[in-house]
Amino acid sequence: MPPSIGYGGDYNPEQWPREVWDDDYAAFKLAGINTVTVGVFAWAHLEPAEFRYDFSTLDAIVERATAEGMRVVLATPSGAMPPWLARKYPDACRVDFEGRRHVYGQRHNACPSSRDFRRAAVALAGRLARRYGTNPAVVAWHIGNEYGGACWCPECGDAFRKWLRGRYGSLDRLNDAWNTTFWSHTFTKWSQIEPPNALSEHWRGPDHTAFQGITLDYKRFMSDQLLEGFLAEKAAIREHAPDTPVTTNMMGLYQPIDYHRWAPHLDFASWDNYPPADRSSTRTAARMALTHGLMRGLRDGDPFWVMEQTPSVTASRDVNPVKRPGVLRLWSWQSVAHGADAVLYFQLRQSRGACEKYHGAVLDHAGRTDTRVFREVAEVGAEFARVGDAVLGGRTPARAALLVDWDSWWAVEMSDGPNRNVRYLDVLTTYHRALWQANVPLDVVPVTADLSGYEVVVAPLLHMVKGDLADRVTALVERGGTFVTTALSGRVDEDDNAFLTDVPGPFGALLGLRVEETDAQQPDVVNPVTLFGAEHDARHVFEVVVPDDAEVLGTYGADFYAGTPAVTRSARGRGHAWYVATLLDDSGVDAVVRSALAHHDLLGPLADSPDVEVTDRITADGTRYLFILNHGPARTVPIPVPGTDLLTDRPLSSGEPLELPPTAVLVVRCDPER
Amino acid sequence: MPPSIGYGGDYNPEQWPREVWDDDYAAFKLAGINTVTVGVFAWAHLEPAEFRYDFSTLDAIVERATAEGMRVVLATPSGAMPPWLARKYPDACRVDFEGRRHVYGQRHNACPSSRDFRRAAVALAGRLARRYGTNPAVVAWHIGNEYGGACWCPECGDAFRKWLRGRYGSLDRLNDAWNTTFWSHTFTKWSQIEPPNALSEHWRGPDHTAFQGITLDYKRFMSDQLLEGFLAEKAAIREHAPDTPVTTNMMGLYQPIDYHRWAPHLDFASWDNYPPADRSSTRTAARMALTHGLMRGLRDGDPFWVMEQTPSVTASRDVNPVKRPGVLRLWSWQSVAHGADAVLYFQLRQSRGACEKYHGAVLDHAGRTDTRVFREVAEVGAEFARVGDAVLGGRTPARAALLVDWDSWWAVEMSDGPNRNVRYLDVLTTYHRALWQANVPLDVVPVTADLSGYEVVVAPLLHMVKGDLADRVTALVERGGTFVTTALSGRVDEDDNAFLTDVPGPFGALLGLRVEETDAQQPDVVNPVTLFGAEHDARHVFEVVVPDDAEVLGTYGADFYAGTPAVTRSARGRGHAWYVATLLDDSGVDAVVRSALAHHDLLGPLADSPDVEVTDRITADGTRYLFILNHGPARTVPIPVPGTDLLTDRPLSSGEPLELPPTAVLVVRCDPER
Amino acid sequence: MPPSIGYGGDYNPEQWPREVWDDDYAAFKLAGINTVTVGVFAWAHLEPAEFRYDFSTLDAIVERATAEGMRVVLATPSGAMPPWLARKYPDACRVDFEGRRHVYGQRHNACPSSRDFRRAAVALAGRLARRYGTNPAVVAWHIGNEYGGACWCPECGDAFRKWLRGRYGSLDRLNDAWNTTFWSHTFTKWSQIEPPNALSEHWRGPDHTAFQGITLDYKRFMSDQLLEGFLAEKAAIREHAPDTPVTTNMMGLYQPIDYHRWAPHLDFASWDNYPPADRSSTRTAARMALTHGLMRGLRDGDPFWVMEQTPSVTASRDVNPVKRPGVLRLWSWQSVAHGADAVLYFQLRQSRGACEKYHGAVLDHAGRTDTRVFREVAEVGAEFARVGDAVLGGRTPARAALLVDWDSWWAVEMSDGPNRNVRYLDVLTTYHRALWQANVPLDVVPVTADLSGYEVVVAPLLHMVKGDLADRVTALVERGGTFVTTALSGRVDEDDNAFLTDVPGPFGALLGLRVEETDAQQPDVVNPVTLFGAEHDARHVFEVVVPDDAEVLGTYGADFYAGTPAVTRSARGRGHAWYVATLLDDSGVDAVVRSALAHHDLLGPLADSPDVEVTDRITADGTRYLFILNHGPARTVPIPVPGTDLLTDRPLSSGEPLELPPTAVLVVRCDPER
Repeated sequence: MPPSIGYGGDYNPEQWPREVWDDDYAAFKLAGINTVTVGVFAWAHLEPAEFRYDFSTLDAIVERATAEGMRVVLATPSGAMPPWLARKYPDACRVDFEGRRHVYGQRHNACPSSRDFRRAAVALAGRLARRYGTNPAVVAWHIGNEYGGACWCPECGDAFRKWLRGRYGSLDRLNDAWNTTFWSHTFTKWSQIEPPNALSEHWRGPDHTAFQGITLDYKRFMSDQLLEGFLAEKAAIREHAPDTPVTTNMMGLYQPIDYHRWAPHLDFASWDNYPPADRSSTRTAARMALTHGLMRGLRDGDPFWVMEQTPSVTASRDVNPVKRPGVLRLWSWQSVAHGADAVLYFQLRQSRGACEKYHGAVLDHAGRTDTRVFREVAEVGAEFARVGDAVLGGRTPARAALLVDWDSWWAVEMSDGPNRNVRYLDVLTTYHRALWQANVPLDVVPVTADLSGYEVVVAPLLHMVKGDLADRVTALVERGGTFVTTALSGRVDEDDNAFLTDVPGPFGALLGLRVEETDAQQPDVVNPVTLFGAEHDARHVFEVVVPDDAEVLGTYGADFYAGTPAVTRSARGRGHAWYVATLLDDSGVDAVVRSALAHHDLLGPLADSPDVEVTDRITADGTRYLFILNHGPARTVPIPVPGTDLLTDRPLSSGEPLELPPTAVLVVRCDPER
Repeated sequence: MPPSIGYGGDYNPEQWPREVWDDDYAAFKLAGINTVTVGVFAWAHLEPAEFRYDFSTLDAIVERATAEGMRVVLATPSGAMPPWLARKYPDACRVDFEGRRHVYGQRHNACPSSRDFRRAAVALAGRLARRYGTNPAVVAWHIGNEYGGACWCPECGDAFRKWLRGRYGSLDRLNDAWNTTFWSHTFTKWSQIEPPNALSEHWRGPDHTAFQGITLDYKRFMSDQLLEGFLAEKAAIREHAPDTPVTTNMMGLYQPIDYHRWAPHLDFASWDNYPPADRSSTRTAARMALTHGLMRGLRDGDPFWVMEQTPSVTASRDVNPVKRPGVLRLWSWQSVAHGADAVLYFQLRQSRGACEKYHGAVLDHAGRTDTRVFREVAEVGAEFARVGDAVLGGRTPARAALLVDWDSWWAVEMSDGPNRNVRYLDVLTTYHRALWQANVPLDVVPVTADLSGYEVVVAPLLHMVKGDLADRVTALVERGGTFVTTALSGRVDEDDNAFLTDVPGPFGALLGLRVEETDAQQPDVVNPVTLFGAEHDARHVFEVVVPDDAEVLGTYGADFYAGTPAVTRSARGRGHAWYVATLLDDSGVDAVVRSALAHHDLLGPLADSPDVEVTDRITADGTRYLFILNHGPARTVPIPVPGTDLLTDRPLSSGEPLELPPTAVLVVRCDPER
Repeated sequence: MPPSIGYGGDYNPEQWPREVWDDDYAAFKLAGINTVTVGVFAWAHLEPAEFRYDFSTLDAIVERATAEGMRVVLATPSGAMPPWLARKYPDACRVDFEGRRHVYGQRHNACPSSRDFRRAAVALAGRLARRYGTNPAVVAWHIGNEYGGACWCPECGDAFRKWLRGRYGSLDRLNDAWNTTFWSHTFTKWSQIEPPNALSEHWRGPDHTAFQGITLDYKRFMSDQLLEGFLAEKAAIREHAPDTPVTTNMMGLYQPIDYHRWAPHLDFASWDNYPPADRSSTRTAARMALTHGLMRGLRDGDPFWVMEQTPSVTASRDVNPVKRPGVLRLWSWQSVAHGADAVLYFQLRQSRGACEKYHGAVLDHAGRTDTRVFREVAEVGAEFARVGDAVLGGRTPARAALLVDWDSWWAVEMSDGPNRNVRYLDVLTTYHRALWQANVPLDVVPVTADLSGYEVVVAPLLHMVKGDLADRVTALVERGGTFVTTALSGRVDEDDNAFLTDVPGPFGALLGLRVEETDAQQPDVVNPVTLFGAEHDARHVFEVVVPDDAEVLGTYGADFYAGTPAVTRSARGRGHAWYVATLLDDSGVDAVVRSALAHHDLLGPLADSPDVEVTDRITADGTRYLFILNHGPARTVPIPVPGTDLLTDRPLSSGEPLELPPTAVLVVRCDPER
């Protein structure tokens, strides 16, 4: 990894006249740009006809970048195939959820099972690696682009059946897993199995399936199938570039791909940070923090990259607001604060035409460097150059963890009953926000993670319980830890079949209760829950709990289950297990989460300032860097630790008032603890 | 028919380990269950490969049920075909409205015209009948499951053309019926006729067609075609089980199938009672009452069965609330009150996996009998066992009737103009609710019904007028009866062509008026109608009426037709004919309906308590059983008739105050009238 | 052209028994009807089998019409093909946007590239022309009906590629135009190009495309392709009827067809006036005025026809209100006021069946002539007969122009970014309404129009700037004119590629500013703009403007660009160029437009009465006819000019109070100016 924060972005000069290349590099110097991602959409350039390769333009691009001292991130172009490929190999195009074979168009459109596409993509990746693999300026390989989507073609059907054979071994086991006696679905030959889509098991779209089992497996299969394409290209690259790290730009909280299944195969994680529009800057910041955490959690706490962000506007949304002044800098530093060692833009110069011509760029259509956007980009570049490198490689030890599980995400959102309005991300982000506003150092980890280092583990909507998870959670609690889970957890096994026991299945004994009924109501129905003397709104799902030995902390205030438990806590060994039997509003979740954290003295600094984010990185030499970021209005807070703000060289004394204007950023090198 | 109320439900032990069968029967005894429906989804079990039959599991199930003294309802499994059938015979799968051939998946998915499917389904039905047809425990046959949907495949196209030849005889007559000179559609060969769907006559979905005639006929055809499948299986059963009654579980107010066309072919009617979510418990109760009435009306007042209801929650809705305490009992008794001789659940034990795993059941995943749901099920079972049988076979003589007509339903909802917001069920349920809240004994009958026994006949949205209906209605009025109809009635003939006369066509002379214009407005536009001195809201459709000799009872209060008639009544012979020229709100419809009923002294008991339902059954020995059901909050009412509440053995004196808590049920054996 | 206002409409007696023909003509005489359009949907009658022609019915229809002294508009029936054609030539049916080949059904459904359809349509048009082309009663030919829609079949694909070769000459030029290096789309063979639809470049529907260039060209191509069909029929007619004018009924502000590309090929323009439902009668009137203006602008100010309007209700809307009393007359006269020389109905007798059976007609199903609708039709007929002819052929000279550009319409609505809520017609109608309420004589013209006669040119959302437009606009300003344009103008060239300069591209120098950023916000976000001392709401798009020498007239009141320019005006030569950098509300646009008009003394009469429309026509002899139309409530206004109201023969003295009841119409023959 390079010895300073990576800064730059996607650079596609093949889309521009060569005359502007000089202007490009002059601007990059002004902006402190040191990294360029090249070749992402260059297939048609590199291989204008099958087996006819032409590297002349890419040679020139790489040579120039190298000459300018840039670090080069070299992409394989498999994210967008050229027209000749689709025309010659129609099977390279996908069949969509509606069963329609597509023809050439768009991008991210290749069938992941197409042998023709695979062969062509791997061959080109190998060629690229052979040509550029030993160039020391190439600091990383970037395979494909934003992997995603799915295909339901016959070739995928074949691959799916093969994948199922591998998973289940026998049809008997598969029939059991999918509970096929229900509705007479017993499969007697593998060939009877059809990819689940609008023409087979689905109605009303991808979340409505007659058989959750087959659809769940198709999601797992498709995630694996896309990974297989990535791995095939990676293998081709490895032949010629054995040491250069390989990644692909992920999309954060992206439902269709289980990034936890991909993580072992990435040399480092990277993602594209385009947070969904939200009028609350704090919710947006929390969501980005969650995603940064998810990315950092993929590789056991290793630093990651922000591979893309826009310097100003997106284009693909219905409404595309510009980033307000200061936001670019705030978010860029937030990335670093959470473990990013590179922060890159899409893209360095604005597209001339097609669907991204209004997407923001470091340089606009006129190539100006006197715009607000360019000035802000250059300001961040200057700060990164001056102080950013100090934190490089720094890590963020955490005693609290949030569990994220794609299987539960998939299972709960495709479930018929109890309530389609329950969305995994809504609940996950509500619990995460509470943890984040408490400014607790937090890991975001899969359910397979080692929990032995944590004191508090929060697992919202842990619908599916797999493997030895219940045992590991119980061990956490026994040794003094706290576990928090919610309604709709502990419902199904790895096959999405209900546990044939009381709800919540394997967590029942730990939680000291059983759930007898699950009521559901429309979104406007509120049941007030009284918890620690305050009332909070509960919505959507209301489980009727019969406590065994769990302590009742919160109760419903309405309906026929008024007065019965809504929040409980059981004592097991030296620890506790919380159950929140409904979906609480923000204040309710705050009450639960802060109580659990406080018990372990884990409330972080400035936890009373809900818009002020505080997080830290600790470098190899033990230096702690504290990042203070204000996502809200101006505010004065007490300085939480003594140290020096590297951005201003200002010394900070603990407890003294610190004025935080909107979008304020401090990077505090903490004084060594005495 | 068995000599006590049937109680039990769908029982699919083939989906469960045999170990729980003992638990099942122990629980059934606790709950008073005497009836099990078996085999509904057993095709894959019964015929695991083509022509290879295996009845071993079903034998065991039936033997055990027989041994336990259960009545067995034996289903043919044609509601869900096995995978091998779809794979071998792709034509067995449907082509959907979008023109897409489906592959294997879901259920209720077989093409009703597929010879391959038909042959297989009939063969299996015959085998089942041969094997179990003489078992006296088998009290009824249940063919298929919830027939519905439609297919637009080429084989259906052929069958449709054949059906059309049968209906019209010649293309000339067909061209006339469909008015094909409009838009140059004159068909010159039968083969030119395409099934009407998104690829031919439709846009914006099934209700938007360029030619109402072809679409209407396709609906009629498809209803007939599904019936043909039912009849073929019935014939196969009849060969071996000539006397056991045959039914299928209908879906009540289900638009795609004209149950009136099916009725003559059912030995008894049965339906699945899953009322749509409605925040008003009273509207829900009224809707169930309407549907019970419709079912009772299918077979001329014969008792029917509730073949399915959920003991707690559904799973297929977006939001699935649990039934509140007491509601299961209230609704079960309501079913009996309206003529049900059996009340069954779907299902007796909860599914382990797939899309109904969260659907409620008598026994939950853990198999508990100490849950609220099980207790309520057992309470109903005990009551049925103790007092329910008294009412078995009882009938409900009525002097008022509500006309329901699938043709009008179809025609008015696929009409271009005047207003797509007019929905048949909205208007039907509004008029029915008014009748129901008046607690008048009511028949719900087709337009072909003999009207000679009625004094009041209400026919909302009778858009299409067929056969001698106008004559029969006129005769009703002439002999002193009252006829009430509404806007948009009397518009089209059996071919859905406009009557080439003044509106409302054949009713014009009877009603003593003509409709000159039909205004339509958005749903938020209200025109106040003054009727009997009170003002009511009218919406959606406002007909401008020119009265001939009709008496004007209500007038519009706004717009350019302010002051003109909105409600009229004509005197003909000894009776009256009402016309409501707009869509009135509840209070307006109440005013009309109660005035009409009062004229015949037909206002029922407790008609002032809008949430209290009172209905009766009279058994063969002349005993009258009055059911009093409280669907609203607690209320005290005067006892309407002297008798004895069989549920409490409490004697009741007429006129004394009766406290009705929420969900109260009384089954009053009335004292013989003196 | 005939020497009196054409009055009548679509007449399809082949759809009715001959018995009513006599009644028809009796009624026509009562109503002053002099024109019938025949044969629009008669293909199946005229050619019941391929090459078998039967003109007997049409002969009878034309003979009778001729005998009755009617003017006959003879339609070719290609708007609705007969069943035999689709069955024999499946390629005659379209492939839709989803890629599905349709089968027979509906109308307006023929593939515009189908050789089989084209051959049949042209042959029949030729036959008709040969038979009726010399009949002097035939005053016009009406080809097809409401051309529209699109097809994506392989034959269209071939035609599209051919069209592209013609447009671009080489693939290099095409690749440049579509900016195909973006996303690796470089085409290396023509055959690689697929029609853009849901299976290729599109997602989320027709407005969402990965490549705007290909989609834009497909729209241009499809508009041309439909025109090619029209021209082929026209050529066949011309062989036998060299002098009779040929038209087709257009649909006004219809997005899919660029009527400006069609205009040179029409002998006169005609359109079908079915304004979309709007609760504001004034907005509806303004929209009709805009469309009349667009139609008049097609042929350089020549009179046009209203080929269809409904006398009472439509049927195809979800909700179909009746026209209120007086509205039919008001709108009919408005048509004439804007240049219509004929005003026709769809249709003269109501359809018996199918999807237009509830569409209004001059004669209803019963054929009555004593209805309100018939009376109003007859009243208009009488007025036209008495005074309408005076204005025949009159023209409306204008010094103000509104630019309409289909390319900009298409481009701005398919753009990814900045804001999907920006709709071309919303902005166009807002600016038009302001001009219309100012009662300025206005031309509505294409961007290719000669601007030399105008003083004020208003061009909202002129997203695309083509050819020498910027030069012509600059010349307008230099010689003293005023140019007004808005946000999102001047963004792209004819290929929809961004200008590689500051925004707004070729208008930048004229406007004296550059746009540095474009902010976008959700529809509920308002930024108050202060302009001439008053505050107006701005929404959707907020450009951050850096003025060069433009005068700042209005400024934003909120957000980080508060205080920066929202409305500017630059002085160039003797004129001015306005830039409105956001989307203002009605009052804001009024302020801009009225200021611009006032500068040229172009505010029209009664400009303070927003519901009162005043427009004029000047006949060949120089007489000016002023039309005063009240679209709002009753109002008293000063008489604007001396003259005589021809409808009442009442002399009018300038300045005296004139009472205008609702729907008032005056046709004032102005006294000659002294």
